Amino acid sequence: MEKRYDILALGEVMLRLSPSGENRLVTGKSLDVHLGGAEMNVVTGASLLGMKTALLSKFPGNEIGSYAKRIIASTGTDTSQLVYDRESDARMGLYYFENGALPRKPTVVYDRKYSSFTKIQVEDFPEDIYTATKCFHTTGITLALGGSCRETAVKMIKKFKTAGAKISFDVNFRGNLWSGKEARECIEEILPMVDYFFCSEDTARLTFLKEGSLEEIMRSFGQEYPLTMVCSTQRVVHSPKCHSFGSKIYDVKKDRFYEELPYEKINVVDRIGSGDCYIAGALYGMLSEEGSIMKAVEYGNATAALKTTVAGDMGVSDKNEVELIIKQHKDTKHNFEMNR
Amino acid sequence: MEKRYDILALGEVMLRLSPSGENRLVTGKSLDVHLGGAEMNVVTGASLLGMKTALLSKFPGNEIGSYAKRIIASTGTDTSQLVYDRESDARMGLYYFENGALPRKPTVVYDRKYSSFTKIQVEDFPEDIYTATKCFHTTGITLALGGSCRETAVKMIKKFKTAGAKISFDVNFRGNLWSGKEARECIEEILPMVDYFFCSEDTARLTFLKEGSLEEIMRSFGQEYPLTMVCSTQRVVHSPKCHSFGSKIYDVKKDRFYEELPYEKINVVDRIGSGDCYIAGALYGMLSEEGSIMKAVEYGNATAALKTTVAGDMGVSDKNEVELIIKQHKDTKHNFEMNR
Amino acid sequence: MEKRYDILALGEVMLRLSPSGENRLVTGKSLDVHLGGAEMNVVTGASLLGMKTALLSKFPGNEIGSYAKRIIASTGTDTSQLVYDRESDARMGLYYFENGALPRKPTVVYDRKYSSFTKIQVEDFPEDIYTATKCFHTTGITLALGGSCRETAVKMIKKFKTAGAKISFDVNFRGNLWSGKEARECIEEILPMVDYFFCSEDTARLTFLKEGSLEEIMRSFGQEYPLTMVCSTQRVVHSPKCHSFGSKIYDVKKDRFYEELPYEKINVVDRIGSGDCYIAGALYGMLSEEGSIMKAVEYGNATAALKTTVAGDMGVSDKNEVELIIKQHKDTKHNFEMNR
Amino acid sequence: MEKRYDILALGEVMLRLSPSGENRLVTGKSLDVHLGGAEMNVVTGASLLGMKTALLSKFPGNEIGSYAKRIIASTGTDTSQLVYDRESDARMGLYYFENGALPRKPTVVYDRKYSSFTKIQVEDFPEDIYTATKCFHTTGITLALGGSCRETAVKMIKKFKTAGAKISFDVNFRGNLWSGKEARECIEEILPMVDYFFCSEDTARLTFLKEGSLEEIMRSFGQEYPLTMVCSTQRVVHSPKCHSFGSKIYDVKKDRFYEELPYEKINVVDRIGSGDCYIAGALYGMLSEEGSIMKAVEYGNATAALKTTVAGDMGVSDKNEVELIIKQHKDTKHNFEMNR
Amino acid sequence: MEKRYDILALGEVMLRLSPSGENRLVTGKSLDVHLGGAEMNVVTGASLLGMKTALLSKFPGNEIGSYAKRIIASTGTDTSQLVYDRESDARMGLYYFENGALPRKPTVVYDRKYSSFTKIQVEDFPEDIYTATKCFHTTGITLALGGSCRETAVKMIKKFKTAGAKISFDVNFRGNLWSGKEARECIEEILPMVDYFFCSEDTARLTFLKEGSLEEIMRSFGQEYPLTMVCSTQRVVHSPKCHSFGSKIYDVKKDRFYEELPYEKINVVDRIGSGDCYIAGALYGMLSEEGSIMKAVEYGNATAALKTTVAGDMGVSDKNEVELIIKQHKDTKHNFEMNR
Amino acid sequence: MEKRYDILALGEVMLRLSPSGENRLVTGKSLDVHLGGAEMNVVTGASLLGMKTALLSKFPGNEIGSYAKRIIASTGTDTSQLVYDRESDARMGLYYFENGALPRKPTVVYDRKYSSFTKIQVEDFPEDIYTATKCFHTTGITLALGGSCRETAVKMIKKFKTAGAKISFDVNFRGNLWSGKEARECIEEILPMVDYFFCSEDTARLTFLKEGSLEEIMRSFGQEYPLTMVCSTQRVVHSPKCHSFGSKIYDVKKDRFYEELPYEKINVVDRIGSGDCYIAGALYGMLSEEGSIMKAVEYGNATAALKTTVAGDMGVSDKNEVELIIKQHKDTKHNFEMNR
Repeated sequence: MEKRYDILALGEVMLRLSPSGENRLVTGKSLDVHLGGAEMNVVTGASLLGMKTALLSKFPGNEIGSYAKRIIASTGTDTSQLVYDRESDARMGLYYFENGALPRKPTVVYDRKYSSFTKIQVEDFPEDIYTATKCFHTTGITLALGGSCRETAVKMIKKFKTAGAKISFDVNFRGNLWSGKEARECIEEILPMVDYFFCSEDTARLTFLKEGSLEEIMRSFGQEYPLTMVCSTQRVVHSPKCHSFGSKIYDVKKDRFYEELPYEKINVVDRIGSGDCYIAGALYGMLSEEGSIMKAVEYGNATAALKTTVAGDMGVSDKNEVELIIKQHKDTKHNFEMNR
Repeated sequence: MEKRYDILALGEVMLRLSPSGENRLVTGKSLDVHLGGAEMNVVTGASLLGMKTALLSKFPGNEIGSYAKRIIASTGTDTSQLVYDRESDARMGLYYFENGALPRKPTVVYDRKYSSFTKIQVEDFPEDIYTATKCFHTTGITLALGGSCRETAVKMIKKFKTAGAKISFDVNFRGNLWSGKEARECIEEILPMVDYFFCSEDTARLTFLKEGSLEEIMRSFGQEYPLTMVCSTQRVVHSPKCHSFGSKIYDVKKDRFYEELPYEKINVVDRIGSGDCYIAGALYGMLSEEGSIMKAVEYGNATAALKTTVAGDMGVSDKNEVELIIKQHKDTKHNFEMNR
Repeated sequence: MEKRYDILALGEVMLRLSPSGENRLVTGKSLDVHLGGAEMNVVTGASLLGMKTALLSKFPGNEIGSYAKRIIASTGTDTSQLVYDRESDARMGLYYFENGALPRKPTVVYDRKYSSFTKIQVEDFPEDIYTATKCFHTTGITLALGGSCRETAVKMIKKFKTAGAKISFDVNFRGNLWSGKEARECIEEILPMVDYFFCSEDTARLTFLKEGSLEEIMRSFGQEYPLTMVCSTQRVVHSPKCHSFGSKIYDVKKDRFYEELPYEKINVVDRIGSGDCYIAGALYGMLSEEGSIMKAVEYGNATAALKTTVAGDMGVSDKNEVELIIKQHKDTKHNFEMNR
Repeated sequence: MEKRYDILALGEVMLRLSPSGENRLVTGKSLDVHLGGAEMNVVTGASLLGMKTALLSKFPGNEIGSYAKRIIASTGTDTSQLVYDRESDARMGLYYFENGALPRKPTVVYDRKYSSFTKIQVEDFPEDIYTATKCFHTTGITLALGGSCRETAVKMIKKFKTAGAKISFDVNFRGNLWSGKEARECIEEILPMVDYFFCSEDTARLTFLKEGSLEEIMRSFGQEYPLTMVCSTQRVVHSPKCHSFGSKIYDVKKDRFYEELPYEKINVVDRIGSGDCYIAGALYGMLSEEGSIMKAVEYGNATAALKTTVAGDMGVSDKNEVELIIKQHKDTKHNFEMNR
Repeated sequence: MEKRYDILALGEVMLRLSPSGENRLVTGKSLDVHLGGAEMNVVTGASLLGMKTALLSKFPGNEIGSYAKRIIASTGTDTSQLVYDRESDARMGLYYFENGALPRKPTVVYDRKYSSFTKIQVEDFPEDIYTATKCFHTTGITLALGGSCRETAVKMIKKFKTAGAKISFDVNFRGNLWSGKEARECIEEILPMVDYFFCSEDTARLTFLKEGSLEEIMRSFGQEYPLTMVCSTQRVVHSPKCHSFGSKIYDVKKDRFYEELPYEKINVVDRIGSGDCYIAGALYGMLSEEGSIMKAVEYGNATAALKTTVAGDMGVSDKNEVELIIKQHKDTKHNFEMNR
Repeated sequence: MEKRYDILALGEVMLRLSPSGENRLVTGKSLDVHLGGAEMNVVTGASLLGMKTALLSKFPGNEIGSYAKRIIASTGTDTSQLVYDRESDARMGLYYFENGALPRKPTVVYDRKYSSFTKIQVEDFPEDIYTATKCFHTTGITLALGGSCRETAVKMIKKFKTAGAKISFDVNFRGNLWSGKEARECIEEILPMVDYFFCSEDTARLTFLKEGSLEEIMRSFGQEYPLTMVCSTQRVVHSPKCHSFGSKIYDVKKDRFYEELPYEKINVVDRIGSGDCYIAGALYGMLSEEGSIMKAVEYGNATAALKTTVAGDMGVSDKNEVELIIKQHKDTKHNFEMNR
């Protein structure tokens, strides 16, 4: 029987306020508004690819909450599972972001404490969601946010796992939210329930204290936990305006690694959120018809590369665009200057 | 058993391109982009009020079609019933709009011929849509557009009626699309199937050649056709920046008229689409829980008045905002300067 | 001996984020940035008139704090007394503001809790500030904000009074911060120390439970407390775009009322902060060379009317502009269309 | 034999720099760029109506001169008679303009001294221009600018008159450029050569010391000088945003006055230059095929009213638009809300 | 005897609508407006260099047609030969353009069918135009557009050739308008009348099936047809933001090739239209006083390189700017950082 | 005893008007407004670093003067020493600036003659300023401007020197203001009073006719004049968008050179003013607590590199930002992608 959703994700949504282009926070007269949120980036990205998705989150019951709902809905993501905080201290967390110009680095200023999301409870959601999805996704950020977030996330992972959903988890380590030790201990409790595991090489080494080659590290996760796949993205920062991006996925059962030639000379417009869009593409590659790990690599890389070329945390590329890029990436013979 | 949709509507969507504020088309360096389309305005407006709606339309299978899909989805309207034209002459019709400043009137320049929508066919849609909705809405514009539009609309009205849906129809007469005579003859064929009928006093007189007071005219429609309600909006244009807006609805069965005090001194930001938003509110008033004709009047008037205060053809007001306005409209005692 | 400052004020500064013109929060892509803060509006307004002023406040020690410092400094206000919160939860409170268009009212959404300002302490400031100023100003908002604000404000009022400064106090009642009863009890403790008292007629009646004519009310404050002057502004809201503004000041010692013809047909661009700018003008009128209560009326009214014509909470008018307006206001004979 | 030009005009062109909308010069971060210049407004306005026109002026030989040339050419005005100043102190005069909001009036700050135009010489232009036009136009501003302007203008008037061109002259008195006495004495020398004379009632009284009714004043000019027509515009300033505009023209030979109902409730976007556009319309009315004084009144009024509704000193309305407005102005029966 | 025009060109003009900078069509809220059209780019570019030019084209008789006329006139190009379509389906073709950011390529979405231009007839223009110009220019795009375009263009080429004008022709092959075979057959009929022939190496090989070195190909055109010169531009795309540009011209009579060092490291702002501006420069080089093929190379290259640095399809560089760049390009000794 | 100021500077302030981004002066519809002025850039940059500074200058007594005062005050610089020109020809000089895109170079068009500053007199300032500062700074531009500028500057240098202030002087040679010979002769008169001498290698060679290596040149200045330090910046222009920047300072007394690794791969947003910001940083390095020549090198380089990354002539970086960059520049081990 078909499920109502392909992917449900639990996570916070924040306003992102940024001066345009080369403007600075200290002198700016206006701020561009975007939404941020690792799990939201995953479900909106997957929805644009054609998946049925919804976000589980708690928003303030005011105009800012309505704004966020509207932007998420524009991607086709179902917003009917969102819950609203109507107390007088309801707030959407936010962060300020300023582009860099060397030697000045891009800068993030957080103002995310005490947000409505940190009051989230398992009881905020109906019991029938647990059987309604093929896959549940969350990240280490949700575990680290404080308030009732961690308890809620862990309970939900258990309920979704029990109900038969695949569990997707991205470590997404943030040193300003928790320590490596706290992260490792918490995540190690969850890993026995995870199917799709996303972890960067740096985090594997620094937080999980893994050693050896990247492939040895990825394999060791597969040996310790009943994972289906372990995914690790590989970004090279040539300059703030020029990256290359690729990834490697380990198929635990087959003990095999998948990858393709990375995307080179990416024109970086906005780097934030590209890792989340990788997950959107990879989950699409796994969960869609004729899904496979190789498809996860290809859609993950293309979706991430495309995100890097647009402003804001969220991607805007739909299936047509992602598949055109995949085709052009594989076609080494023709190289037209323009699509027309 | 609950229906999948509360309202389905069939209609064309156009790009609207307009210089901002007081700028002129002949000198403008940039154009603001909005979407126009009478039936789209109805379903998006109703979706913001909480109804489950979808649009039946045909878009070009290119970036402009994707843009339109995205904007419609942002209101929560289901876009899964849209069909795409992938032929080389696929296009979205468009119109240019320039604000007026007396003695210069607002100006519309149409470029809507040969659009993908004019190729629409009954066969573009699955048969199961006819039983999937409580109500089907379309307008005289769709009947007048040429191509296969009229044939498709008439066939659909029959199919929806047969399947038990309420039929909502707005005359929306446009002299540049067809003559009054052609309109009358065509619409008179449809009226036996219509439940909710929207027609302005002017159109009733000029197109349907009705005479007598407005109430006599409304009653005569109810006598000639098996309508449930006849709705007529009443706009007074004090100046391009200041209107008042009210409406009258005739309950055919009870032979009774409903109205309330009109909204006075509306600050007009953009008048286009407010009539469509009236219909969104009125259908919500009828079709929602505890629906009634009086509720149709109140929600219709409030939704229309609110639309008039925002740029673009589509409304942006959700149920919270509409209900706050209704409450303030009724509360003649308190008059705070600000909501805070 | 000349004092280092003419006016010191204690108060919170907030970011104000607002969509431009007729844009809405739910659809906006960018937000204009302004600063808000009743006491800041007073000292910046007075600085533009030529007074030596400084603000006592606590800002987050990040880019947002630097932004605020920069804007305040641009008016000539001394920013060397600002203190900075460098803890990880440091934040500047903020509010979202959206213009109205009837029947939609202007809307404020607050997100000001847990701000760095609410941690403010008397110990944050050096002891030599108490003898460094002619006048100290604060408002009921500071008393109502929670955290250590009230205690700090009350202590400072005592210290400044003891050191010989004039105490200026604006009730500025906000029902979403405290109740009328709490406000009344708190302010009645302070009133024995106040010299310049600003209170609207509505607040006098609703919060202080005064009765009788406005003049009777103003006189009663002068009878109960050792005030020098009692000021009450009089705004008439003809429409959101058209106000008139005047004021009445009661000279307690002389038992005499001062006023002038109000400013009529003000083109309202942004109403917020005009009451604070009234105080800036009135304090200038009292404290500057050849100061007098009549000068307080004239400079107060002109500065408030001018504020109403510019965007943002803060005024931008300097002494030249204020004095030109006062001259034109008094000159009923000449009425040129333009200054050139 | 057909002349190469219908109208040639001599006059200065200035940059106009203005903060957009309600922004202020003291806080603005950007300035909108327009061109100003009474005579330029006349020839560009007449060119849009279909006349063959050119401007006689001197521009700096730099990018700013090129900018001005480009804008003037966009109206179809011939720019081949412009001359360029390539000295190191070449400059285009400029003025800053800020909109008003009552009680603040619109403000002009001039920075026009030492401009390249003030070096203009009769020798800058070829001798064949004098026979190349039906009509030559200039204004009192050119006479008042200093440098070699007055001498050049007076010489040119003589040469054009001698060559058989009609002489059009607008007093356009500016008290900051010269005194009333100086103006009167200078203009009285020119008036014996003038055919079309434009003078406001106020200037006639204050500068030319005329008395009696407006019609008596206009007739007296016709009695003293060999004028063909005397034109006087009549503006009523209801508020900065709402004017009405009409005019009266005296046909000297027939001793008859022409006028029509004024344009009422004009939505003022930018008032500057509307008087010049009146002249553009009036000269078109006189000089075009089937020209007449009544046509001068109608085209003058419509062109002026339309100018008032667009930003910048120059009009943008072509013949189609002006004639649509004239038709709607005369048609008191139909009053559609929109052109479509 | 001097001709009225140096160059007349026949071609379509389209609106180009593009989101600014890095914005995307699917998310854009506004679109920048430019004009596109290969032949228009040639005449406007040549007019800025000082040539007397006019465009032969058909525009809709509405505000969009007026807009286009205004922009073309701003370059000094004569717009008096434009004809207008006043039928109800009159339209200006348009295209949407979005910048690329690797791996996303720049994208063009056409909506140009059924335009007013496709109704163009020889009869739309007076017979005296054929003797009024030194040179007539058109391109393969006009031949490929459908409607009456090809017939009109071929007839005009014959009439201009007969009247003694030089015929300039640019192949400008577009695979989405016609096939290579159709193009070859059509153009081979025209080539016996062409004097100045512009064809890229790629098109020569793919469409005209030429083989051998570029010089052999260029020479073979000269052997087969009575051409005066054969021009081929050479662009190297290092990246979307960095091109180099040069060209080679074959003097058929002298059997000699002309070229210069290419422009290297061009900062690409907008690549579209640079090929057309090359032609503008080359025709200026040939047709102006002291014209020569070497001058055609130099002005062609410089005008093309400059176009690449400005937004929009049309160039904006006048003779001063082009000659400054030529001088700096030849001056290998001095390399100042700035012009001042 | 503590001085009231750390640095006073004498210099002109100009408006800078520039089209944004890639826009051109000839087509621009709006101009961004910044302030320019070498000495102003020094005092505002030093004020942001924490120094007590003021500018000695003469502004027009109008809105443009008020604008400039406001911007300067925003950096914390004392504006109480500014004097105002209230004559009718008062003006602020200005210049137009357009970014380059190769092969087009950045372009400056000056319109700075006859400015209010050129009327500046020693008598404009009170006598007590000479003892109020640790350091006085001016540049060769002030000496070259004409009017009474040179005489005033020379007199002030003598008065400040006599009163014990350090004299800081930047040659800043501009060939369009005076000849090399005039500059050399004038500056050689001043050099005996200078302590901190800033001169580029090119200027030393071309204007002062120095020969030998850079170190030999710097040492020779120290041998001829009683200087404390000689500073020379070293910029390498890899491309208009990519520079590297370093500097060398010669400690005359110790006969020793100081430098550090240059800043490489600077993302150039706006190059103008970075040399002045170098001086701001270097003077801070010398004059602040624990000042030293090595600190001058480090703060000078960092402040200059940071200026290069922001739009406008003035820097915006405060002490926190400059010190973060210095720390990151020295830390070759860690290289995070972002500050957060």
